[in-house]
Amino acid sequence: MNQQAPKPMPRVDGRRLWSRLMRMAEIGATEKGGVRRLALGELDRQARDLFSGWCEAAGCAVSVDAMGNIFARRAGIDDGALPIAAGSHLDSQPTGGKFDGALGVLAALEVIETLNDHGIETRAPIEAVVWTNEEGVRFTPAMLGSGVHCGEFGLDEAHGRRDAEGISLGEALAAIGYRGEIACGAHPLGAHFELHIEQGPILEAEGLDLGVVTGVQGIRWYELRVHGSETHAGPCPMSMRRDPVPVLAALMSELYAFTQSQGDEARCTIGRMDAAPGSVNTVPSCALVSVDLRHPDPAGLARLDEGLRDLVARYRGGCRVELEDLWHSPPVAFHPDCIEAVAAAAEALGLPIHRMVSGAGHDSVYVSRVAPTGMIFVPCKGGLSHNEAEETRPEQAELGANVLLHALLDRAGSA
Amino acid sequence: MNQQAPKPMPRVDGRRLWSRLMRMAEIGATEKGGVRRLALGELDRQARDLFSGWCEAAGCAVSVDAMGNIFARRAGIDDGALPIAAGSHLDSQPTGGKFDGALGVLAALEVIETLNDHGIETRAPIEAVVWTNEEGVRFTPAMLGSGVHCGEFGLDEAHGRRDAEGISLGEALAAIGYRGEIACGAHPLGAHFELHIEQGPILEAEGLDLGVVTGVQGIRWYELRVHGSETHAGPCPMSMRRDPVPVLAALMSELYAFTQSQGDEARCTIGRMDAAPGSVNTVPSCALVSVDLRHPDPAGLARLDEGLRDLVARYRGGCRVELEDLWHSPPVAFHPDCIEAVAAAAEALGLPIHRMVSGAGHDSVYVSRVAPTGMIFVPCKGGLSHNEAEETRPEQAELGANVLLHALLDRAGSA
Repeated sequence: MNQQAPKPMPRVDGRRLWSRLMRMAEIGATEKGGVRRLALGELDRQARDLFSGWCEAAGCAVSVDAMGNIFARRAGIDDGALPIAAGSHLDSQPTGGKFDGALGVLAALEVIETLNDHGIETRAPIEAVVWTNEEGVRFTPAMLGSGVHCGEFGLDEAHGRRDAEGISLGEALAAIGYRGEIACGAHPLGAHFELHIEQGPILEAEGLDLGVVTGVQGIRWYELRVHGSETHAGPCPMSMRRDPVPVLAALMSELYAFTQSQGDEARCTIGRMDAAPGSVNTVPSCALVSVDLRHPDPAGLARLDEGLRDLVARYRGGCRVELEDLWHSPPVAFHPDCIEAVAAAAEALGLPIHRMVSGAGHDSVYVSRVAPTGMIFVPCKGGLSHNEAEETRPEQAELGANVLLHALLDRAGSA
Repeated sequence: MNQQAPKPMPRVDGRRLWSRLMRMAEIGATEKGGVRRLALGELDRQARDLFSGWCEAAGCAVSVDAMGNIFARRAGIDDGALPIAAGSHLDSQPTGGKFDGALGVLAALEVIETLNDHGIETRAPIEAVVWTNEEGVRFTPAMLGSGVHCGEFGLDEAHGRRDAEGISLGEALAAIGYRGEIACGAHPLGAHFELHIEQGPILEAEGLDLGVVTGVQGIRWYELRVHGSETHAGPCPMSMRRDPVPVLAALMSELYAFTQSQGDEARCTIGRMDAAPGSVNTVPSCALVSVDLRHPDPAGLARLDEGLRDLVARYRGGCRVELEDLWHSPPVAFHPDCIEAVAAAAEALGLPIHRMVSGAGHDSVYVSRVAPTGMIFVPCKGGLSHNEAEETRPEQAELGANVLLHALLDRAGSA
């Protein structure tokens, strides 16, 4: 916590925030109450224009970098200091909700409006940031805007990514007028905070309205394949088959049991299953599943990885078991100063401090490589996200924005 | 066994049979030594023309019915008697082998040539038959030609079946000149024998060259679906999920174990596996598999069906388990007279009599509904079939044709 005292305790205008969330959700609104606003399409342009217009009306200077990341800046007393930023994204899943991303962006703007309302000047500038193509739906991979900002991807590489129709990200940026002049990463941040819906059920299940996010789970992706021998389903007795499916079914059960033995922070998901050639009356030559292992702690993730490898190595049947590594995203620990700024803001607002790890990726994962970063979670109903039924209550959105406000004030310093 | 004695013991010309098998395999030959000769295409026309030409050269009268089924008739002494037929098919799998179908058709012709060579007249006429679209690859379902012959499918229904390009079976028949005048089923048979490769590993494993087929396994097809709740792979602890995949994996393992407990004649195959939405980092909302259960005995198949239903009914977790019946083909028992004719022929040729049940469907399944029917199996290397590597040895093909010859003589009666 910043030691300057006494601190003002301003509060955001929850009704303004909510009304803007609802206005933003009209852009790409779906019949089922969700949002479909794919990155860098006409609807994303409308959303960006709406946001930029509000920011300019609030007195911000709006700039755009070469990835279309938008920085809306409220000047600081020491305007040469690195800006303290709050950001998220405005693109959505194909059948997404109203809050995933938009909440973080509009709460950042709400912080700026609140500072204006109360005539509070901050030492460092405050910025509201929109990161481009977080969802990774129209252009893969996910989090491309923040990824180029932090140097994970090159600009040309990102501009060259193409959507299903063959349009490149660079062309799409230019088409909607958001291919900016500023070089990516040439705009360093003094800190970055992201308010986001939890996208999981824990806060709701524990009756909490706010989570202090300390980091992001580490993730390992694999493909687990069992190779047997293709045979007609009729003539060959089961005892003479090299059938990969019973082997895979047993491995799957063992993997679930092993992961659960590693405690509640360990996660195993099998999201894809397939068998080749995929004929009802043919014993498959190959059966495969995807495996997604997660753990917040590097040692825990390493134990899961080892357990899976052991399972595969211990198998001694007639089939060949193969494990391919697809991806590894090490656990992210956010910056202690940012975590404590969020915790102090929660405490100052009279909230219990519930520290938790994010199970999902966010722009903050990449931003944390180049700037001290923290995140704030508010609940979403039933843990539902990436779903048109995604829902957060107005008072929870307001609470999150108030915590964001005070965390930013803590890091930016006020007059 | 027919009691007329003494019987002649003529033998087929194994070299002629083999050379015709190899000549036929040139039509649609693949680089890997297999055959791709889809039903009613130009290659099937060439195969039919080659066969018909050989039959006419052997003195047969060739006729074609409205389904393109070909009947090549060698007159009998009592030419009004119902013909004793041997048949199979000339169409292949997309990556099929040289013997599946073609062996039965060419062995039937070889029987006729052998009778000619030895000047043997039979009481009943002898016919070599080609059944249309056995494989069910270009037009579904399988065994359409024999299916219409026995009344399982209507002629219009079969003619209306369309391939992937929208061409109907009726059009395809006309295009290659094989839409015949004879009404289907208006050509009754006194008996039907089919020599076929085993398409399984049993004969080879037991060191046998011939199998006396007593019937065909009964088959039940199902789709087994488990419905859970779609969730992001990260945020939701495993203990709070309704994940259908571990439920399905456990059910699969139990089903395999149960089927194996029912003896070696019971078969369970899971050939298709899928999960929706099929994303690596999403707990699926639904996971499903196909289930193919087989047993040669109706009571045995009913026990398997009951066991599967019990498994599903006993499940008491958070997911919903659903079992859909897709297809039921009851076990087929061939005609005792035909089975005994094959067994007697094998015995007369000095072969051990190995009675077995076919695990695969054949034209004989449908033909057996309208005529006494029997089948003869010869081994195929490694049990491989529906595979370009399909292989049977020349002496095994010859042996099978000799058994076919004597079974036909038994049923047709000779002068």
